[in-house]
Amino acid sequence: MPETQALAAYIVNSRMEDIPADVRREAHRAILNYIGCALGGAPDIAVSKAIQALQPHFGQPVAAVLGRRERMDALHASLMNGISSHVYDYDDTTPKNYIHPTSPVASALFAYASVHTVSGRDFMEAFILGFEAESRIGNAVYPAHYDAGWHITGTAGVFGAAAAIGKLLNLTGQEMVWALGLAATQAAGLREMFGSMGKAFHPGRAAQNGYAAALLAQAGFTAGPRSLEGPRGFAAVQAARYDLSKITAGLGVDFDLRVNTYKPFPCGIVNHPTIDGCIQIHNQHHPAPEEIRAVRLRVAPLVMDLCNQQNITVGLQGKFSVYHGAAIGLVRGKAGLQEYTDEAVNDPHIRRVREAATAVGDPGVTEDQAHIEVELADGRRLTHFVEASLGNLNRPLTDRQLEEKFRDQAVLAIPAAKVEEAIALCWHVSELPDVGELVRAALP
Amino acid sequence: MPETQALAAYIVNSRMEDIPADVRREAHRAILNYIGCALGGAPDIAVSKAIQALQPHFGQPVAAVLGRRERMDALHASLMNGISSHVYDYDDTTPKNYIHPTSPVASALFAYASVHTVSGRDFMEAFILGFEAESRIGNAVYPAHYDAGWHITGTAGVFGAAAAIGKLLNLTGQEMVWALGLAATQAAGLREMFGSMGKAFHPGRAAQNGYAAALLAQAGFTAGPRSLEGPRGFAAVQAARYDLSKITAGLGVDFDLRVNTYKPFPCGIVNHPTIDGCIQIHNQHHPAPEEIRAVRLRVAPLVMDLCNQQNITVGLQGKFSVYHGAAIGLVRGKAGLQEYTDEAVNDPHIRRVREAATAVGDPGVTEDQAHIEVELADGRRLTHFVEASLGNLNRPLTDRQLEEKFRDQAVLAIPAAKVEEAIALCWHVSELPDVGELVRAALP
Repeated sequence: MPETQALAAYIVNSRMEDIPADVRREAHRAILNYIGCALGGAPDIAVSKAIQALQPHFGQPVAAVLGRRERMDALHASLMNGISSHVYDYDDTTPKNYIHPTSPVASALFAYASVHTVSGRDFMEAFILGFEAESRIGNAVYPAHYDAGWHITGTAGVFGAAAAIGKLLNLTGQEMVWALGLAATQAAGLREMFGSMGKAFHPGRAAQNGYAAALLAQAGFTAGPRSLEGPRGFAAVQAARYDLSKITAGLGVDFDLRVNTYKPFPCGIVNHPTIDGCIQIHNQHHPAPEEIRAVRLRVAPLVMDLCNQQNITVGLQGKFSVYHGAAIGLVRGKAGLQEYTDEAVNDPHIRRVREAATAVGDPGVTEDQAHIEVELADGRRLTHFVEASLGNLNRPLTDRQLEEKFRDQAVLAIPAAKVEEAIALCWHVSELPDVGELVRAALP
Repeated sequence: MPETQALAAYIVNSRMEDIPADVRREAHRAILNYIGCALGGAPDIAVSKAIQALQPHFGQPVAAVLGRRERMDALHASLMNGISSHVYDYDDTTPKNYIHPTSPVASALFAYASVHTVSGRDFMEAFILGFEAESRIGNAVYPAHYDAGWHITGTAGVFGAAAAIGKLLNLTGQEMVWALGLAATQAAGLREMFGSMGKAFHPGRAAQNGYAAALLAQAGFTAGPRSLEGPRGFAAVQAARYDLSKITAGLGVDFDLRVNTYKPFPCGIVNHPTIDGCIQIHNQHHPAPEEIRAVRLRVAPLVMDLCNQQNITVGLQGKFSVYHGAAIGLVRGKAGLQEYTDEAVNDPHIRRVREAATAVGDPGVTEDQAHIEVELADGRRLTHFVEASLGNLNRPLTDRQLEEKFRDQAVLAIPAAKVEEAIALCWHVSELPDVGELVRAALP
């Protein structure tokens, strides 16, 4: 069976009880992580500007954006959810294809659930299948597609949103083929946008356009039947090399949610081992900031290329400073959004430790590792070697760490009193009679 | 100056008085042809299904779709105008890059003009600049981009819509760079959709997304600054070979509106020489249908590959039958939308002549030519050789022929009494104080 048809048939026919328990469990972690990121990014100026620009074209104010007060139609809400959840690059990643997979799929689903009553079971079934469709299509074209300059989160994401919303709409096999086709023909997003708001626009538009593809297909708006494998289809047009068998091999058995990862820190990933090690030193030894005389880092050479900034004054610069990463780990024992504010960068303790740090690039250190030595005023030396950085597949964030990451972000958008309720609802989302309950917990 | 910046600066700074008179004149012909096509396609089921699917998400009912009664926001109206004007593949073409250039640009502009008061002068300035931006970006990546499988009307079209709406919004140079960037990162549309409604979706989405790109840029939503020429920009990612100099060479001097063409007949272009020749025989000799004993066609071999259907019963098949093309030319002396209905295909006179026709492919006949011989009951033979088909650059449709094409389509969507008013307004659109007047003339 051709890949488009086979994938469509799988999405249409799969049932929640066919999905392994560990995959369902991981889906809850992905949702918790996603909502935290959406809440953290919701107040960002990129979201505000997008709302300002498009508000005159909003439909009936029936749909909600996570973490925001404005109401709009569900298509625009999908767009805004997608922007907010990716704007800090803090959302999840599947390392095998570099997709940030949850944002395009869940951004559409939560917009849908803010308007329609949908059970947690149906919601999670649609989420898992959308995630899987997106990641498999990404696998088929990765790495040629990404290397060529496509932002794969946008291009693969639109399929995920179409599949997920199409599942909730109970599309037939033919309609799902059309939905995937209308997704394929909207697959877009250039890496040339990196460093601008355009990057976060990609999962947003993917969510919105995938949602629209499913609606159009449901109404009988037709698309080409071979949008994935056809000679002028997605794979042939958008990848110099591709392997379509990755779309269908092990469908229903292998799930890419199992290889999903969550960033522990909202900064360039090359700084993560240093931050991770410094937090561990903080937690073990609790050195007083004023006692830290020197910090010596030995890191992968790439860290020195990307993050060798020491004299910094604004929060955004902190994301690209390995010295700041070390300082916040040692001084505060954490690196959340609050550690990358202007306030944190100019905190006298953090600044002093940052300025006491030195770093050297060492080709013997991998990008997943860091050697850290802290010299205290009394001459003691605390050392730590990070072998594999926190958040990697081999050292996934624990549920507790995911909750901590959630809290850190959620307080930026919703009252502290609602944060624990939202966390509890995330863990039990598949049991909810109406996912709208979770949406409401994630609103100001 | 890099191409993105140079093109943006040109669009921002160009004034109507800088545009040569012949270009302004041709723009009026393009607009007349466009509105005719939009009205002809407005009742089509693809438009109805798109409206049905997306209506729950429409914004305030302030914007109009040409030829339709529904009201919606201007972004959705852009989409619908784009679908209707391309759904019969009857809109204009620039043969140098195979773009159907007016649909993406004018679909956004007329949606805008249905909501905002805009003078004909500003409207046509924006149209000409949008058309030019789109066609030049298309030239830079053609043919590699098209050959790879991109539907260039969608991918280049989004730039045209962004440029045109951005011009009306008086974007600054920086904002126009962002608008082009947000267009680039939405450039999509696969040729795998050909033969489905997805094809007409492309200029619609291009119009809608280009319009949104301009709105976002105006609000300060940023994009990468090198969206055309950057290493991960539109040209590098979406074309194996490209020539960026075509974007800027002769800007303000050379205009692709001068090489725009208009289809005389709503069917596969390979049938055009046959139809053209048969209409000429009809006009010269007025043979009575019942007197036609045989029709012998000698045509390019490609015609036999694509249009060798004789026993047909439904209108759509007629578009792919060179015999039907000959029959309607000889019997009715025209080939408008009414000649491709089920009724026309089953008209006894047309059927008899169609069945009396034979055709041979001859490698000595170009795709622009046809040899026609008609044998009458009295033994007379009428012959005609079409050297260059009507509608080509060397034999453009006359203003009168464009008006006739307009009438043929417009009556499907608006009262006959408004048709002449709409034609007159098209010829004078650049003098209108408010293009809304033309929009209203093109509504039921």
